[in-house]
Amino acid sequence: MTGPWTTTPPSAYVAVDGGGTSTRSVVVDATGRRLGVARAGSGNPVSAGTELSARSITESVAAALAAAGLGADRLGLLLLAVAGTGSPTHREELRRRLIEAGLVMPVVFESDLLAMFAAGTHVLDGYALVAGTGAAAIRVEDGRQVAVADGLGWLLGDDGSGFWIGRRVVRAALADLDGRGPTTALTSLLLGRLGLAPDVASPRETVAAAVSRLYADRPVRLAEFARLAFEARGDEAAATILRGAGSALARTLHAVAVPPLRGPVVLGGSILAHHPDLGAVVAGELARILPDGEEPVDVRTVTDGLTGAAVLALRRAGLTVDEAVHARLRSSIS
Amino acid sequence: MTGPWTTTPPSAYVAVDGGGTSTRSVVVDATGRRLGVARAGSGNPVSAGTELSARSITESVAAALAAAGLGADRLGLLLLAVAGTGSPTHREELRRRLIEAGLVMPVVFESDLLAMFAAGTHVLDGYALVAGTGAAAIRVEDGRQVAVADGLGWLLGDDGSGFWIGRRVVRAALADLDGRGPTTALTSLLLGRLGLAPDVASPRETVAAAVSRLYADRPVRLAEFARLAFEARGDEAAATILRGAGSALARTLHAVAVPPLRGPVVLGGSILAHHPDLGAVVAGELARILPDGEEPVDVRTVTDGLTGAAVLALRRAGLTVDEAVHARLRSSIS
Repeated sequence: MTGPWTTTPPSAYVAVDGGGTSTRSVVVDATGRRLGVARAGSGNPVSAGTELSARSITESVAAALAAAGLGADRLGLLLLAVAGTGSPTHREELRRRLIEAGLVMPVVFESDLLAMFAAGTHVLDGYALVAGTGAAAIRVEDGRQVAVADGLGWLLGDDGSGFWIGRRVVRAALADLDGRGPTTALTSLLLGRLGLAPDVASPRETVAAAVSRLYADRPVRLAEFARLAFEARGDEAAATILRGAGSALARTLHAVAVPPLRGPVVLGGSILAHHPDLGAVVAGELARILPDGEEPVDVRTVTDGLTGAAVLALRRAGLTVDEAVHARLRSSIS
Repeated sequence: MTGPWTTTPPSAYVAVDGGGTSTRSVVVDATGRRLGVARAGSGNPVSAGTELSARSITESVAAALAAAGLGADRLGLLLLAVAGTGSPTHREELRRRLIEAGLVMPVVFESDLLAMFAAGTHVLDGYALVAGTGAAAIRVEDGRQVAVADGLGWLLGDDGSGFWIGRRVVRAALADLDGRGPTTALTSLLLGRLGLAPDVASPRETVAAAVSRLYADRPVRLAEFARLAFEARGDEAAATILRGAGSALARTLHAVAVPPLRGPVVLGGSILAHHPDLGAVVAGELARILPDGEEPVDVRTVTDGLTGAAVLALRRAGLTVDEAVHARLRSSIS
């Protein structure tokens, strides 16, 4: 390995996956070996705010470096996989905190969607479809994100996402209670989650109690009820919602696809990672949408964006991540 | 006319329709003749807040009494038609302001949905279906609201409402621009309303600009885009949205219906009042839902809740509102 360094070449790289519930950082060497890993609070600048997010990131980076027994002087760069790749305010806040913590190193930002793709494959061309609270698809060419569809947020887009499913779950249950919709198993599941007993004598009071609790929280929190659709196995309303989600996600992927579909399709995000049935629906819908005679699509699911962030960190440092390095990163991080 | 009054019996009654954009008050006599009318700012405690709402109501009542040349001492009561019939806080604030303004009189609250029903008919049994920004249906028996469906707000219900339609209009246009949905005339209508030129070279930048403007406002403001569905005549996406709205509203009405449907069905709210096509869709869906062999439903549309509030004011004062009084109120107020 050669480089422009006059003293010691960098021996390690830091990758950060800033998620809504926690921030994970990993320190790896040029061969993909894990040297240290750590976790801190929410690192998502959109949900946690730029200040808290920057603090979580700095904390987890410092802890990962301590675990690796390394100082910042030995680091090639810090790569951060962030939704929307971070606002200028977030970047400034982060740089300030890193310097305060004595962590002076080059910082680069990459899309969390591209990290998800890189977590699934060492190949440089293909697609990622991510469905967590939100949903989006990207096309990747030569290792760069060249097209994106959806990701427009809970109010205006995110078709097939956790919010999309959760909102439909809640509305179906309330419509059932209200006499406007068919009977569904989602109703008792929802009331159970809200800690409400079904009041058979006065369903309208049950509706009022549920509505009042649900409006007390931020709208996006409806995503938490998505899991009820998967729990209600065999329920027709739940099955209709999940079929709709699969079909919407396939349309989002199709919007960035250039047939013939080259390269793997990487599925990620909590909704797709933890519910293989939905991935199967997406694959089926995709086969239906794409022209006949195409090669079967290579669909793979990833549960972990941190591996992908590490892949991108090595690449942005000018290193090659081949199949062997990718496999080493994958097995050492996840 | 007899009463428990030892001095002069009341000669007039005040009715108030507290809407989102303006508050209207009318002073009527026992025969349904209009003595004075006035208008002030928003009187909706939910959208304007309890304080501003109470101020608007007090202002419009004082102005209507001035127009009638009457003092509060000659009044039987003040009836207020409010969504959710007003919170205790709103009621207290209103009483305080009325007293401060020297307007001491009995105040009674009634549901705005019941006022909408009473605006359409002098009959004491039937149904009202209201679709403005929100949507709800009620069953009326013996002049009282005995059942209600939906009205659960933009996030959790209001199926077929202005918000419901407007949100679908915006999402269909964005999906079109984003390559996820079919081409629709709604797209250019939306961009026109947002003051954005369609950027054919980079539709994704157009999407980003539209999304950023739309998230800058409160979610409920998406209701304003409902009108685009009516403007886009002949467009398939728009027709699908409106068919869905008609069908959803028919289901809401059906949820409170006790077959055989007795009494008239009164349609009200900006969406149903200004778009007779949608009323026709609802009537058609209703015919499809209800058992064969039922009498054709007597569907009538009202544009004005204030007449209904006046009907309820006279009734709550113990007076009879027959067909003749109802007709007099209608022609003198609207």
